[in-house]
Amino acid sequence: MIHAYDFVLMKTIHILSGGMDSTVLLHHILEQGNEVKCISFNYGQRHSKELDYAKATCFRLNVPLEIVDLSDVKKLLKGSSQTDDNVEVPHGHYEEDNMKKTVVPNRNMMMLSIAAAYAFSTGSESVAYGAHNGDHAVYPDCRKSFVDAMQGALNEADWNKVELYAPFLDKRKEDIVTLGEHYGIDWTTTWSCYEGGEKHCGKCGTCQERIEAFSIAGVKDPTEYDNV
Amino acid sequence: MIHAYDFVLMKTIHILSGGMDSTVLLHHILEQGNEVKCISFNYGQRHSKELDYAKATCFRLNVPLEIVDLSDVKKLLKGSSQTDDNVEVPHGHYEEDNMKKTVVPNRNMMMLSIAAAYAFSTGSESVAYGAHNGDHAVYPDCRKSFVDAMQGALNEADWNKVELYAPFLDKRKEDIVTLGEHYGIDWTTTWSCYEGGEKHCGKCGTCQERIEAFSIAGVKDPTEYDNV
Repeated sequence: MIHAYDFVLMKTIHILSGGMDSTVLLHHILEQGNEVKCISFNYGQRHSKELDYAKATCFRLNVPLEIVDLSDVKKLLKGSSQTDDNVEVPHGHYEEDNMKKTVVPNRNMMMLSIAAAYAFSTGSESVAYGAHNGDHAVYPDCRKSFVDAMQGALNEADWNKVELYAPFLDKRKEDIVTLGEHYGIDWTTTWSCYEGGEKHCGKCGTCQERIEAFSIAGVKDPTEYDNV
Repeated sequence: MIHAYDFVLMKTIHILSGGMDSTVLLHHILEQGNEVKCISFNYGQRHSKELDYAKATCFRLNVPLEIVDLSDVKKLLKGSSQTDDNVEVPHGHYEEDNMKKTVVPNRNMMMLSIAAAYAFSTGSESVAYGAHNGDHAVYPDCRKSFVDAMQGALNEADWNKVELYAPFLDKRKEDIVTLGEHYGIDWTTTWSCYEGGEKHCGKCGTCQERIEAFSIAGVKDPTEYDNV
């Protein structure tokens, strides 16, 4: 069951990747009647297909979007399949050890700190992002302990306050699918795959997670996969 | 008295602005025999004169430097004299209320989070930055409470550990001048002024702080000022 999102938002900066989680969270924030500006990051990732999906979603929902170019940061980040062209995207399950190759070091702190700067600058009360339970095994910066610690740092960073809003932290991916269904989301408007092909590859960790989430939620998966 | 910098460094990423504080800290880190890589940020500040000084310092000391282009972030940051061309640089003393115009929202969290990403990616144990006591009145993100909270967030952000090293937090600017003298720093290789003129303007907050620090430390100020 998805319930008890009792945080009261007013003006929020939402980090939209173009994937399922952040797209559902955007709908959730809008549904509550809040004012929202989206922010997306080009951090020199392997492909920017997600960003096209983020743009299309914001256009459709009539929400302002800023895409911030952090591609110069890529030169600092070696060893991640997401930012280093010499490292291949691993295939397999999220829980597997080789998935750690997909970690972009300190990615969420970088994105949250810039989103928070935007929030401070625009008098927004909160920054939203769609980290969820299924990310925990691989990504330390998707856990509640990280979000709590970041909140502590944000409380000291400015004379004004910005609240982090991460209501999916204890949700599983399938809960997010269920919530998205509730909002009538067309899932073909979201992109998950770590590869940047014409269709979702169906083999990488995030494709496998996507396939499983639809299956467990009992929702028909409208995604076209290359290898499934 | 400057003493008790008893933190043991090994490999560190140092945030070098090209100003006095970070230049003295770089000498201090090198003097301790540590391995250091410097990182500087172009965040669309009013002028990039400081960056030229950072480059020259690293070249002279034979230290690698990465200059990271964050200039696209500037579009998010309105109202600061440092990033918004519509806001004039205020003249006067740091403690005065109009100095708040010089605050770049969340600047240190953004810089520290990227420097930390670089540290995680290169297996460096620490990130150093030169925030000091005199910054506290205006800049919340130069206080010990902020550094402590950021350390807490960094501890949760990655499977590896990175320590923040900010040994000047409780030092006054004049203490930093004294330490720099001890290391024989040529002060004309550092840039403070918020304006980007041929010489230091002598009127902005950071010029006034520079002038006072030399005076209180009893050190001859070799800086050429326009208006003093």
